[in-house]
Amino acid sequence: MKKSYQAMNRDELLLERQQVQAEYERYKAKGLKLDMSRGKPSKAQLELSNGMMDVLSSTADMTSVSGVDCRNYGAMDGIIEARHLLAEMSEVPEKDILIYGNSSLNVMFDTVSRAMSMGVCGHTPWAKQGTIKFLCPVPGYDRHFGITQFFGIEMINVPLLPTGPDMDMVEELVSSDPQIKGIWCVPKYSNPTGISYSDETVLRFAHLKPAAPDFRIFWDNAYSIHHLYDDDQDVILELLSECEKAGNPDLVYKFISTSKVTFPGSGIAAMAASPANLEDARKAMFYQTIGHDKLNQLRHVRFFGDMDGVRAHMRKHAAILRPKFETVLDTLDRELGGREIGTWVRPKGGYFISFDSMEGCAKRIVALAKEAGVVMTGAGATFPYGIDPKDSNIRIAPSFPEPDELAQAAEIFVRCVKLASLEKLLGE
Amino acid sequence: MKKSYQAMNRDELLLERQQVQAEYERYKAKGLKLDMSRGKPSKAQLELSNGMMDVLSSTADMTSVSGVDCRNYGAMDGIIEARHLLAEMSEVPEKDILIYGNSSLNVMFDTVSRAMSMGVCGHTPWAKQGTIKFLCPVPGYDRHFGITQFFGIEMINVPLLPTGPDMDMVEELVSSDPQIKGIWCVPKYSNPTGISYSDETVLRFAHLKPAAPDFRIFWDNAYSIHHLYDDDQDVILELLSECEKAGNPDLVYKFISTSKVTFPGSGIAAMAASPANLEDARKAMFYQTIGHDKLNQLRHVRFFGDMDGVRAHMRKHAAILRPKFETVLDTLDRELGGREIGTWVRPKGGYFISFDSMEGCAKRIVALAKEAGVVMTGAGATFPYGIDPKDSNIRIAPSFPEPDELAQAAEIFVRCVKLASLEKLLGE
Repeated sequence: MKKSYQAMNRDELLLERQQVQAEYERYKAKGLKLDMSRGKPSKAQLELSNGMMDVLSSTADMTSVSGVDCRNYGAMDGIIEARHLLAEMSEVPEKDILIYGNSSLNVMFDTVSRAMSMGVCGHTPWAKQGTIKFLCPVPGYDRHFGITQFFGIEMINVPLLPTGPDMDMVEELVSSDPQIKGIWCVPKYSNPTGISYSDETVLRFAHLKPAAPDFRIFWDNAYSIHHLYDDDQDVILELLSECEKAGNPDLVYKFISTSKVTFPGSGIAAMAASPANLEDARKAMFYQTIGHDKLNQLRHVRFFGDMDGVRAHMRKHAAILRPKFETVLDTLDRELGGREIGTWVRPKGGYFISFDSMEGCAKRIVALAKEAGVVMTGAGATFPYGIDPKDSNIRIAPSFPEPDELAQAAEIFVRCVKLASLEKLLGE
Repeated sequence: MKKSYQAMNRDELLLERQQVQAEYERYKAKGLKLDMSRGKPSKAQLELSNGMMDVLSSTADMTSVSGVDCRNYGAMDGIIEARHLLAEMSEVPEKDILIYGNSSLNVMFDTVSRAMSMGVCGHTPWAKQGTIKFLCPVPGYDRHFGITQFFGIEMINVPLLPTGPDMDMVEELVSSDPQIKGIWCVPKYSNPTGISYSDETVLRFAHLKPAAPDFRIFWDNAYSIHHLYDDDQDVILELLSECEKAGNPDLVYKFISTSKVTFPGSGIAAMAASPANLEDARKAMFYQTIGHDKLNQLRHVRFFGDMDGVRAHMRKHAAILRPKFETVLDTLDRELGGREIGTWVRPKGGYFISFDSMEGCAKRIVALAKEAGVVMTGAGATFPYGIDPKDSNIRIAPSFPEPDELAQAAEIFVRCVKLASLEKLLGE
């Protein structure tokens, strides 16, 4: 264990800074150019799905098991075999799922958009209810917050604890304020902290008593099967069935996609919800599109066969991702352990490592990293309006870089953390 | 030339009815089951694009000419080669086009949705401007009218003449009423009448002086390359460049897709517009999606090569569609020519034949056809709110049925027209 920076006197801090600065300059001189800003799969991961390009051919039968010609119009709900597969992936019955296009973010955007202009299940459109609000567990996913910001929805920060959102706060706000219409959740291997919601958290969500009858939980299960380890996986309770048991069947919209299973941008997305919620979605869908890409649905199903095929595929992703996560985490442990200038968790899945620096250091760390050729997700991005009140949280996305580049980037990152912290401790 | 029903006395009408009724019953007894309700390509047409399933394979290089890995996130505007191809298809410069997902209807929906919630190019959102209105040339495309109806936009019928919408009426309304925000147009091989807008019409559109600064022409060029004949094709002026010349560069959104070029639902769609309009669209797109399906863009480009490839492909579609159109038109000519109980035009492209019956007969004709096993597009569907004030227009979609079935359906249809007309003339 290294000596805590908090315990150093001024001379020690200055000496330490001299050393770290020299290390930083050496890395900077290497002229690295690396983008770690988004959770993009690496080339090696993309190769895993290349076989999907072979399953349909000019001589293939492109008919769904239900007899639908996937090359033509029709089957707005998605072809049966795709509904079956994504229902299993979502842990819901087939009747409770609709297959959409290539992006679950787009399904979420459309779901908010529909609520704004059409209202939720017959209630007054959100756009006609004055200022409405969403709860945003923080740190969270910038693109979620972007959607609510786009529609002028007021966002309220709720701390994300190791067990999930602060449910005392969620319950109090949701039950008392009818202007609160939703909450953004990434319940498993959360973006960015990597934590998974506890059973108690999920059950408290299922038993929420919202003041607004048109309140919905936006449950983005983006990393539901994105484990890093075979023998140490997070398991969360399935919220839709828990809502049903609690007498709250319409409380949740669940979202899922294969963006980080097959090809980002060329995957398939789905929404799982109660029959009433799906009927509401179908009504808008009729006006919105002539239907989604059924050939891509068929391609996915034929490539995987079944959920066992999906699971085997995800183990291959894990084999590529696991050493990358461990490289970053081991570097954090080795260089920052005991220094008392930041905290982080070891996620068991997902796409991110979340780092919390000393207060007021995140922007500076990201700027220093950029100067040394490493582009991180902008500090603040994990908070609504891009404002991290403590200027502390940084999202690390280890998936895209090649292993050797990533190792260097991690070394640079920890030096940036040290430098920014030393500056702060030295009162600069 | 057969004798006009209008010139028949009561006895002649009764005798004619007896004969037609007998013919109708004979067709009905055959128990045909045929859906002619939508413009769906036939199986033979779909086969033309099956080769598109072979152009990408597990060993293919899936990199765009600009170096973008089409399997990963990125390139929100679409890959360069797809922009190039669809720009040529749209007759606009590459800089003026954005590639979207699988459905141009969806792009139109989103464009209206964006105008409602965000406003057009910095103007007040439509949703906050009170009752807004759209002009709807009639007969027109039901799914266009569905979008404006969904958003609560008031629709005003404008007659569609052989040269395009009644431009005297369009100019007067658009220049005097700032609540009028748009007009739906299918300028070439119009849905359903098959007519193409004259040069004068296009130029008058380019020179419109709307009272509303956020008025836009929704130019759905759905059938721009969907000719039936090699040597007799409609050509229309390109509106975006005419708008530029007229000093109205931002006046138009152009929409296009490959839904009826390759596979409906698995094609690619695009919007062409001025730089200011595209910038406006990009702003929303950033919140709306993580990007569109670039592998499908690549698949399309590699399948066609270039516009010559597309044109050769469209000639194969024409070879299948042409005899179908001619079957229906020849049956109309033979059985209804001279009867003075309906009018129709011979389109040179597109997907539909539009039939105008005597006033008050369309619903009855469609009902009679259904009774005899032929499902047509619902009477009224070609008008906003599904209300055809004259109950006269019927859209015939000859593409999907097999040739022999189509021939029978056409025979049934003309009997239904005769029966409904005779009932009316007999005062029943």
